[in-house]
Amino acid sequence: MIVTLRSDADPARVRRELVARGLWIQPLTGGDGAHVAVSEHSAHVDPDELRRIVGVASVSVAPSAHPRVDAQRAVTFGRAQPPSSGSEPARRSGDDGRITLSVGSAPVLMAGPCCVESAEQVERIAAQVARGGARVLRGGAFKPRTSPYAFAGHGRAALGWMRDAADRHGLAVVTEAMSSEDAPAVAEVADLVQVGSRNMHDYALLRAVAGCGKPVLLKRGMAATVEEWLLAAEHLLVHGASGVVFCERGIRSFDPTTRNVLDVGAVALLAHVHGQPVVVDPSHAAGRRDLVPSLARAGLAAGACGLLVEAHDDAGAALSDGPQAIHPDELATMCGGTP
Amino acid sequence: MIVTLRSDADPARVRRELVARGLWIQPLTGGDGAHVAVSEHSAHVDPDELRRIVGVASVSVAPSAHPRVDAQRAVTFGRAQPPSSGSEPARRSGDDGRITLSVGSAPVLMAGPCCVESAEQVERIAAQVARGGARVLRGGAFKPRTSPYAFAGHGRAALGWMRDAADRHGLAVVTEAMSSEDAPAVAEVADLVQVGSRNMHDYALLRAVAGCGKPVLLKRGMAATVEEWLLAAEHLLVHGASGVVFCERGIRSFDPTTRNVLDVGAVALLAHVHGQPVVVDPSHAAGRRDLVPSLARAGLAAGACGLLVEAHDDAGAALSDGPQAIHPDELATMCGGTP
Amino acid sequence: MIVTLRSDADPARVRRELVARGLWIQPLTGGDGAHVAVSEHSAHVDPDELRRIVGVASVSVAPSAHPRVDAQRAVTFGRAQPPSSGSEPARRSGDDGRITLSVGSAPVLMAGPCCVESAEQVERIAAQVARGGARVLRGGAFKPRTSPYAFAGHGRAALGWMRDAADRHGLAVVTEAMSSEDAPAVAEVADLVQVGSRNMHDYALLRAVAGCGKPVLLKRGMAATVEEWLLAAEHLLVHGASGVVFCERGIRSFDPTTRNVLDVGAVALLAHVHGQPVVVDPSHAAGRRDLVPSLARAGLAAGACGLLVEAHDDAGAALSDGPQAIHPDELATMCGGTP
Amino acid sequence: MIVTLRSDADPARVRRELVARGLWIQPLTGGDGAHVAVSEHSAHVDPDELRRIVGVASVSVAPSAHPRVDAQRAVTFGRAQPPSSGSEPARRSGDDGRITLSVGSAPVLMAGPCCVESAEQVERIAAQVARGGARVLRGGAFKPRTSPYAFAGHGRAALGWMRDAADRHGLAVVTEAMSSEDAPAVAEVADLVQVGSRNMHDYALLRAVAGCGKPVLLKRGMAATVEEWLLAAEHLLVHGASGVVFCERGIRSFDPTTRNVLDVGAVALLAHVHGQPVVVDPSHAAGRRDLVPSLARAGLAAGACGLLVEAHDDAGAALSDGPQAIHPDELATMCGGTP
Repeated sequence: MIVTLRSDADPARVRRELVARGLWIQPLTGGDGAHVAVSEHSAHVDPDELRRIVGVASVSVAPSAHPRVDAQRAVTFGRAQPPSSGSEPARRSGDDGRITLSVGSAPVLMAGPCCVESAEQVERIAAQVARGGARVLRGGAFKPRTSPYAFAGHGRAALGWMRDAADRHGLAVVTEAMSSEDAPAVAEVADLVQVGSRNMHDYALLRAVAGCGKPVLLKRGMAATVEEWLLAAEHLLVHGASGVVFCERGIRSFDPTTRNVLDVGAVALLAHVHGQPVVVDPSHAAGRRDLVPSLARAGLAAGACGLLVEAHDDAGAALSDGPQAIHPDELATMCGGTP
Repeated sequence: MIVTLRSDADPARVRRELVARGLWIQPLTGGDGAHVAVSEHSAHVDPDELRRIVGVASVSVAPSAHPRVDAQRAVTFGRAQPPSSGSEPARRSGDDGRITLSVGSAPVLMAGPCCVESAEQVERIAAQVARGGARVLRGGAFKPRTSPYAFAGHGRAALGWMRDAADRHGLAVVTEAMSSEDAPAVAEVADLVQVGSRNMHDYALLRAVAGCGKPVLLKRGMAATVEEWLLAAEHLLVHGASGVVFCERGIRSFDPTTRNVLDVGAVALLAHVHGQPVVVDPSHAAGRRDLVPSLARAGLAAGACGLLVEAHDDAGAALSDGPQAIHPDELATMCGGTP
Repeated sequence: MIVTLRSDADPARVRRELVARGLWIQPLTGGDGAHVAVSEHSAHVDPDELRRIVGVASVSVAPSAHPRVDAQRAVTFGRAQPPSSGSEPARRSGDDGRITLSVGSAPVLMAGPCCVESAEQVERIAAQVARGGARVLRGGAFKPRTSPYAFAGHGRAALGWMRDAADRHGLAVVTEAMSSEDAPAVAEVADLVQVGSRNMHDYALLRAVAGCGKPVLLKRGMAATVEEWLLAAEHLLVHGASGVVFCERGIRSFDPTTRNVLDVGAVALLAHVHGQPVVVDPSHAAGRRDLVPSLARAGLAAGACGLLVEAHDDAGAALSDGPQAIHPDELATMCGGTP
Repeated sequence: MIVTLRSDADPARVRRELVARGLWIQPLTGGDGAHVAVSEHSAHVDPDELRRIVGVASVSVAPSAHPRVDAQRAVTFGRAQPPSSGSEPARRSGDDGRITLSVGSAPVLMAGPCCVESAEQVERIAAQVARGGARVLRGGAFKPRTSPYAFAGHGRAALGWMRDAADRHGLAVVTEAMSSEDAPAVAEVADLVQVGSRNMHDYALLRAVAGCGKPVLLKRGMAATVEEWLLAAEHLLVHGASGVVFCERGIRSFDPTTRNVLDVGAVALLAHVHGQPVVVDPSHAAGRRDLVPSLARAGLAAGACGLLVEAHDDAGAALSDGPQAIHPDELATMCGGTP
């Protein structure tokens, strides 16, 4: 953003007005008049407000690169369910049992195993996470694995196991599509199609997933800027996705004691400045079980409207990511305000 | 940590027991027996617990490099005050008006201007932050400035202005010592002596500050690992500091939209695994005013027991960091659970 | 790596022998005997050499996670050509005109436009880069674009234009496959199939590209560790790629004055410790034209055996990345030792 | 930098002219006329050249924050020596035996032990590095140590040992000042006073060192931007330093296999765009001996005019950093073009 001063302006006075609004500024000289450049990490201020400052001639801005994301405020997913007589956990978000994520809405818990290992396992864990307050079942049918020799998931069979288990317990389903080929099969069973962190920049996959027309949970790339993340969401909306939920899962940094760094500033920025629905994944951010509840609470405090958590009832036997999974019984404490 | 297996152990069974406890493991071969290396970003587990697993012959660990920090659990500072009849803000933490920071204690708010500009300014802001719930007045007398041409503080005069203002409003004082020469003068007026982020690795300064015998607020270096931070605290305790409060102020990362990334994982680790008192500085972490309240709440949710916040009642006129200062009237919302 | 000491060993003496070999060590205690952990960033030493040190009982190591990469030493590609009478540029690497990349081989220059814009453009630039010493024509037919509104390449038509131009000038072709669907078409015309930085972790794409059986140029992910990069190469070799050339193109860091940081340490590590063929892409590493020649020379000095350079003869008219493209006439200076 | 267009300009044509010069641009709208913002990581172009483009009304720039650095082109240090009859190694840089560092000058090798351990040790190693082609003896008398329990150097005694050894072998001396108190003693014996990476932001120390009037070797902070580094140099020149040599020693990154990442882009930028004398420290950048020669060559290829290398003839017995020290006999290969 560039602020151009009138030739009769008092630069010190304009400077004071700009700084008072939270803007980091850099005076520029050598042109035909005085300009002031506003730094990218300034607080968000409406340009029209600046145009009304005495001494300001004009304010020039870069057009938004992601107009469709800018227009989005909420994402609704899940299946409408018939009214029931009992007190079901799936009935908190709307009259029809569907789930809406938006800034300020009650936190939605998405939980389940890293990897769907069998029909029995996912049924058992689905029951447990539903009891723990989850409204969405997460789990991997197709698993991205850094090593080509690691177990990569049961694929399409696991999709069916998840859907059945979720339906029995009134849960929606979020699961990852790793390839264009599998995207339609995933979109058929998932209420929310996940694009993983390692694929955030994979534009062919974004197009294929978007083409299925479902809402998408878009994980942030491990070293993606917020602007790149917004642009990946724009790819999805342009190509047909019915909504995008942002999922912050930690960015790569230099300290080996935690696996990633949960960027709560990005959560706050997306939620409170951009007005977007954001969930956090404290499991991948921490990479270690003992920090997961704290990071979950920090993410919600920063502005997230949901959590995506790895939960397993026998972590020692888990086929992947056991050390960072919590027991489903611990879920209940996460959305509350205090430990 | 290395786990050595007995020759008759069932490796798969031991693996399961280790993973079940949140350990990321790497089998090692080629020695005289089977070893398992435990990765640094595993959950914290007592080695003695591992020694009791069937099949485990022994567990070898690296000795802690910071025994004095490990022994610390709380830091108390501020001046004991005579009992009074009124309901004073300074009387919440202990019988005698002193302040104690430890994991789980009620959040302590430290607030004030980036830079102490005049006796009048600091008096006015002290009154405001005290009303906003602060128990500690922060402010810079000596200012580290990236540019040699920027205002670097009023120095020793400002120390006196701060102390007077704090005393009038029942506040303790935290302020930074930037050089060994000034450390004694700072320690004389401050209840808590701050070592800044840019000086965390400055061992000569650490020694000089520690030698004053006061408790120290140690900001994390902008790219320091948690282990390096703990070692800097050990430097302080070895050389005479009466306690160390850790202050997380954001680490450097790749995204220009926020100035730094508040590392809530490090906060949770120090608080909940190491048992240390940690405060967060949401102002420098965000670098932009509109994200400060969210980061403050996220830090507390992660385990911080205090906040260090830049507050100014006329940000446009501030001599430094105006764009990231909040108005003192906004302070009251920060320690509460909800926005 | 863990070194276990004999019960009668002199630990100080063993320590000295280990450090003398470039190992960073950490004594571990509490087990049944003394162990020493060797840090990951130590110099490479053969474990058998350590086993011969007096006082060492055994040395345990983690098995390599990428045995197929470990076995690779050179990659050969391009088409064998009939012997000719003239002095053709394509005849430097082998008798048959094919190109071999391995540590220490004469640097191979791969150059061309970021984006193939027309048959005429690629023909003109192919002629220029061949004159400048290039042996391989690079160019994008399918372009990954951060913005969904940016030009994404002419696709399959551009593949044909490239092949024709390359053949006319005795050049091999390297070009990127961005999706599993397009991989076979790319592999049909390319001598070396590129996997881009944003897709390094895209395992479905790695499998599809590998299945074509061609050698692959694998760009490092923008925040991938060397170990993750090696594992992505292992994915390719396991699934059928006939060879993998590593391409270092800069990693993401905190300084906005250069776009990325060319990791010459990773180049040296892959080349001189792992024995792998590595090329560097100075264009994306620098992101600015004026630093490209210096980074090219630095990469070769570190151990690279080739360069991948963006070159355009009318950068102002380029459809993408014009500001970082150099003019083909500048190519000749890059592989030489001096500016 | 902001380019303002004339009202009758053809924006596409101006855009083409700007991109052709290596500028990354962002059109801005909403003002009284069209502006174009030029991104920070563009190639360096003289604003006056842009002002001559048809359609450009004016070009506004931010004034340089480091005018004294901008004016510096070379740094000369060391003691003038009487003419001699023999062929001495110290006589390559000038008639009088003094050493000048500037872009394009013949590489100057600075080598020696991490830590000066005894008069005998430094004498022995001085002889060896002089034979290996070094012109400057490096070594630590005062050592910054992350752990308070590690050996921190012999202090002032070691300064004398270094000076004596250097004089006997015709070498200049570079050694670090870690505190304001010790700065005068260091400046008395050193020809070039080093400010370490951990102290780059320590403004009190910068002032104290600068006040001694000697030239300074300024290591880059482990996460400092190039702009912050230039500003630290400006601090030194403003306060009296007679010159500043920049030393790139690797920046902190996410990959544990190398200790730091040698930023050859920053070397090229400082040398070829800013015209500054830069040396590289491949020892701390690599952190492992086997990569040191490759990084040394890469740094020189990028534009460095000198090397600062840790060398020890008995690394196993070194009191610090043994694993990254090379043997003095290996020095000779480093400044040459080939391994």
